[in-house]
Amino acid sequence: MSTLEPIAYADRGTALTGWLARPAGMPRAAILVWPTIANVSGAIERRAAALAEAGYLAFIGDFYGEPVADFAASFPLAAALRADVDHYRARLMAGLAAMRALPGVAGLPAAAIGYCMGGQAVLELARQGADLAFVASFHGVFETDRPADPDGPHKPRVLVLHGDADPLAPREKVLALWEELDAAGYPWHFHSYGGVKHGFTDPGSDGRGLEALGYDASADRQSWAALLSFADEVFG
Amino acid sequence: MSTLEPIAYADRGTALTGWLARPAGMPRAAILVWPTIANVSGAIERRAAALAEAGYLAFIGDFYGEPVADFAASFPLAAALRADVDHYRARLMAGLAAMRALPGVAGLPAAAIGYCMGGQAVLELARQGADLAFVASFHGVFETDRPADPDGPHKPRVLVLHGDADPLAPREKVLALWEELDAAGYPWHFHSYGGVKHGFTDPGSDGRGLEALGYDASADRQSWAALLSFADEVFG
Repeated sequence: MSTLEPIAYADRGTALTGWLARPAGMPRAAILVWPTIANVSGAIERRAAALAEAGYLAFIGDFYGEPVADFAASFPLAAALRADVDHYRARLMAGLAAMRALPGVAGLPAAAIGYCMGGQAVLELARQGADLAFVASFHGVFETDRPADPDGPHKPRVLVLHGDADPLAPREKVLALWEELDAAGYPWHFHSYGGVKHGFTDPGSDGRGLEALGYDASADRQSWAALLSFADEVFG
Repeated sequence: MSTLEPIAYADRGTALTGWLARPAGMPRAAILVWPTIANVSGAIERRAAALAEAGYLAFIGDFYGEPVADFAASFPLAAALRADVDHYRARLMAGLAAMRALPGVAGLPAAAIGYCMGGQAVLELARQGADLAFVASFHGVFETDRPADPDGPHKPRVLVLHGDADPLAPREKVLALWEELDAAGYPWHFHSYGGVKHGFTDPGSDGRGLEALGYDASADRQSWAALLSFADEVFG
């Protein structure tokens, strides 16, 4: 596994720390990675390392700029971050800008992936027309305070990897997302896994004592394969 | 490309012709392929050949046992075949039995894939509890005269590759399929491609002059990659 390198950056005065994984050779593209509501973790670091092994430069963004003591402690931090959509989106764009400012990244095509709240974060980047070839959401949530912009400067392709038994994103919200993306003219692929819960990519999900969460080995494997195949298509 | 070999078989007195593609080495598994409503075609033969190149024995089933003069001529043949669900399902099981009777196939694990009406056909095989590790439907239709059997002898995994703009399988039928499979306890993965029409895997779809049909290179590529990744997981 690659060793991740901490990268200091800032958003309007808030000091943040990203984590960088570089591939052995010239990167095929740069991929911004947004973690779960609990911010960076071993599970997310392993995804960034796996992207580097697949030839991508991966950069994990920082939601809060402060340590998250435990899972419960992340909720008030997330509520504060997301209370204002402009504040939330500026924080996400700061992560993208920090990645683009890294040596050798300016000329690379880029994408963003995210997990749980990070899945929402990448949809927010797409909704505001960030300059990304695609975004991919793993067990993300679909709510937004500002739907996708039909007149945005870019319309990233949207890949959603979703557990159908995820109570944070029930079927009516799935349909609402499809309608939102269609109305705004964003191309999308949506993979739904029957009986699969929130957090299906994280082997730690089963131990958190929450009914909404569950690891699923097949959904984990197939969603990761789908991401790599999608990236192969987009980045050649 | 492999050269396909015609295989004579029968269903209750009707002479049928399957088409066999063998891999170079020992097959990883046997995959039954159901064609579109127009029965076997070059597009379907190429899929069987591609499966053989990926290490699988592939066998294309025969819906009608008679030549289909053109696309329009297939509709009365399909209507007659599907008028009675037992007749339809017996025809599908005869194809599976013919594949299993081939030399060297009896001990192999098996799956079934299908396109358009063939996508429905593989769902019908799953619904009646055929002994298959999985079925995969490409732009299939979801109607059935007999929903999936919760007490069937087998519950194949179900992979559906679907165009969201397919007027033959609109969103309400997507939801109905999810409910049907959940109610019967079948595990499923469902991939929906935004803005993608019926027949998205067939480059010939655009030339048929039908609004419902359209080729989509990305959905074609990603659905095939999904099939191979799913088969890798199931067959090891």
